[in-house]
Amino acid sequence: MAEGHGASPMSKPKILIQLDTDPHPSTFDAVVAVDAGAERLLQYGGVTPDNVEGLVHGAMFTRGPGDLHQTAIFVGGSNVEAGERLLARVKKCFFGPMRVSVLLDANGANTTAAAAVLAAAKHLHLKEATATVLAGTGPVGQRAARLLAGKGAKVRVASRTQAKAEAVCAAIRARQPSAEVTAAQIASPDETAAALAGASLVISAGAAGVELLPESVRTQAKELRVAIDLNAVPPVGIGGVQPQDKAVERDGVVCYGALGVGGTKMKIHRAAIERLFQKNDLVLDAEEVLALGEELAR
Amino acid sequence: MAEGHGASPMSKPKILIQLDTDPHPSTFDAVVAVDAGAERLLQYGGVTPDNVEGLVHGAMFTRGPGDLHQTAIFVGGSNVEAGERLLARVKKCFFGPMRVSVLLDANGANTTAAAAVLAAAKHLHLKEATATVLAGTGPVGQRAARLLAGKGAKVRVASRTQAKAEAVCAAIRARQPSAEVTAAQIASPDETAAALAGASLVISAGAAGVELLPESVRTQAKELRVAIDLNAVPPVGIGGVQPQDKAVERDGVVCYGALGVGGTKMKIHRAAIERLFQKNDLVLDAEEVLALGEELAR
Amino acid sequence: MAEGHGASPMSKPKILIQLDTDPHPSTFDAVVAVDAGAERLLQYGGVTPDNVEGLVHGAMFTRGPGDLHQTAIFVGGSNVEAGERLLARVKKCFFGPMRVSVLLDANGANTTAAAAVLAAAKHLHLKEATATVLAGTGPVGQRAARLLAGKGAKVRVASRTQAKAEAVCAAIRARQPSAEVTAAQIASPDETAAALAGASLVISAGAAGVELLPESVRTQAKELRVAIDLNAVPPVGIGGVQPQDKAVERDGVVCYGALGVGGTKMKIHRAAIERLFQKNDLVLDAEEVLALGEELAR
Repeated sequence: MAEGHGASPMSKPKILIQLDTDPHPSTFDAVVAVDAGAERLLQYGGVTPDNVEGLVHGAMFTRGPGDLHQTAIFVGGSNVEAGERLLARVKKCFFGPMRVSVLLDANGANTTAAAAVLAAAKHLHLKEATATVLAGTGPVGQRAARLLAGKGAKVRVASRTQAKAEAVCAAIRARQPSAEVTAAQIASPDETAAALAGASLVISAGAAGVELLPESVRTQAKELRVAIDLNAVPPVGIGGVQPQDKAVERDGVVCYGALGVGGTKMKIHRAAIERLFQKNDLVLDAEEVLALGEELAR
Repeated sequence: MAEGHGASPMSKPKILIQLDTDPHPSTFDAVVAVDAGAERLLQYGGVTPDNVEGLVHGAMFTRGPGDLHQTAIFVGGSNVEAGERLLARVKKCFFGPMRVSVLLDANGANTTAAAAVLAAAKHLHLKEATATVLAGTGPVGQRAARLLAGKGAKVRVASRTQAKAEAVCAAIRARQPSAEVTAAQIASPDETAAALAGASLVISAGAAGVELLPESVRTQAKELRVAIDLNAVPPVGIGGVQPQDKAVERDGVVCYGALGVGGTKMKIHRAAIERLFQKNDLVLDAEEVLALGEELAR
Repeated sequence: MAEGHGASPMSKPKILIQLDTDPHPSTFDAVVAVDAGAERLLQYGGVTPDNVEGLVHGAMFTRGPGDLHQTAIFVGGSNVEAGERLLARVKKCFFGPMRVSVLLDANGANTTAAAAVLAAAKHLHLKEATATVLAGTGPVGQRAARLLAGKGAKVRVASRTQAKAEAVCAAIRARQPSAEVTAAQIASPDETAAALAGASLVISAGAAGVELLPESVRTQAKELRVAIDLNAVPPVGIGGVQPQDKAVERDGVVCYGALGVGGTKMKIHRAAIERLFQKNDLVLDAEEVLALGEELAR
């Protein structure tokens, strides 16, 4: 049963409802939420589109319109697709002004992709850049490709499987009809070299401990100016890049490792949580998270 | 192992232990608890009479007698009968002064029934009233009937099934031997009309989206002065009543819809949480929650 | 992805991550944590060595080195051996300076054993004492025996099963080669009497409601000076000792019951939680918890 009253005279505590698709809600996301100023954290694990409605209704129907921005939802979990489905269901629960702000950052995908794109933008005009995203079909890679395309870069979505890469390109084009995205298969070093030909930016978004770009191939990419590797676990994704690298020049290329990008990712993550409590109608997904990172970088 | 010490010099934070019979503890109850001043909330889902003992013992045996009122238990969940069984088991864990206060408000049944009775009491002398409770065998309806009977009203417990209505009447009489309660079957509009004959109050406590009292039947109930509908989802329970109605006169009848009662329900809910922390030996069930609402209304 | 930044200007809230091997994390441990100053409590039930890694990584990788001591882990649950296995796995997640402090107190075993040994040390020089630990193969008994041996006492580990007692002795000797521990079978009152012959201290650490030392046998133990019973549920473990006894003389023996030891146990438990937040590299198991209790007793 909803409450009809308006804003209360005293400010209500900021409550973040952590909806996680894993059985145990992430401690990582919980600690960041606390440090970002969430005064109360309600943690839920094992959340699915089928059991989330009551949890969202409880967020919508407890505080008056003037206080609704003090309640917000975080959607997380290790499975990014499950997080996307959950976010879609959460949004369906809202109606009219009866809503709370929500951030999707399953597996850190949005904040990580945004941090990588921001790092690249420090050194390149993205509008004029050609970018190759290795493992561009994974959850972080898809988001990096989509964000780069949104910034006007020519984007090559590289994957071991051509068909998967093309599906991702199609999905990006469906969102952004003017996006310049092409699929690239990288099942061999030669194909990887071809995928990098003429690229000024490479982002490697593959699984932990898998090298996607050998050093020998990287050093042959003559136009390459920025290399960003998001894998912190050796062997890293781009040969020769160190996890700690933060704008370190190697062979004439500005390099970032996973830890080098991590500081920015954390700042964006915290800022996104803070932002949730400013209004009650925000939905922060990849683009919104990147825009927030750009504000912070100014 | 219990602690023998007395009150500590510094006041300890108010801890509310939310015991919910559903797998995910209610966010609704959690937000209300926070807004009512619970400084720490320990949330538990999937709580049953079989697994609750340790949770209650942990509440009883951790703080000294002088601080025990700073720990309290909330029993909730969507299934009111499961909540009642859980409350009974929680109370069995207590002994002597070793206890903490506990509030039952599974599915909001106690606070909703109390708010409905309070709304009626603004316009009627309940002692002289004849009240018909539609869906009087449901969790909220049973409580409304019991509370009205306790206030001296003549109560008709109306249900599609006569036997169920009679069982509820018997249960009320077992608690309150002087209660004037009768069962009424309402399997047809004619029966519903008969159940309302001479009634000055009708409370509809049925399931969401089910009309129990058609407008045409309502307007024929000539003695009716107050109509309260607790169903917010169209079609509402009483034809013609709007969910937002709060003492709105329609066809000479003062009408309340679910949202119109909701503000009072929320105030009572919050006040009940606050009350828990004043003493360590309170058990707040329907009657206690109504008494609290009456205090607030003064 | 780890964050590289140092200490933030503002102190971050103290976060305790409660990892419990039971389905529902203990309310007892939660309330004590709150009262000990944990500003935020993240509760997790059903934690096993197989699912704990991500939870520990989230604790390690969210705050900078200067703030890591503001995050800590508590390992609890009713099964002490499960807690020990969980602690071992938690410690394996740490590397170099990337770690947080952790306290093991599954079933209160460490704080209870430490409190019992501290009670004994008030009345005896443990170095010169001969101590019999009844149920010395149980989780609390093993820890009491190990702690007493560490203090130089001659320890008899008494159990209904000789082989189990010998296994515990072997385990203690493996840790402390100079430990003077012997196994004693107590399958009959005569064996119990023999196990107590010449002992100045007896600690009974058996299950609730089981008498291990009948009063008639106790009063025959002529050298006995201190008797400590850790079972609060009648019949208690040592005949004639009352749960509330705290240094009460009975038949010339200084007696402690479970509640008499409980106040000290609680103080140690709280102090151990507080201690966690002073550094980020503490592992508080039995010996460290006892050392902390000794500091408090000074």
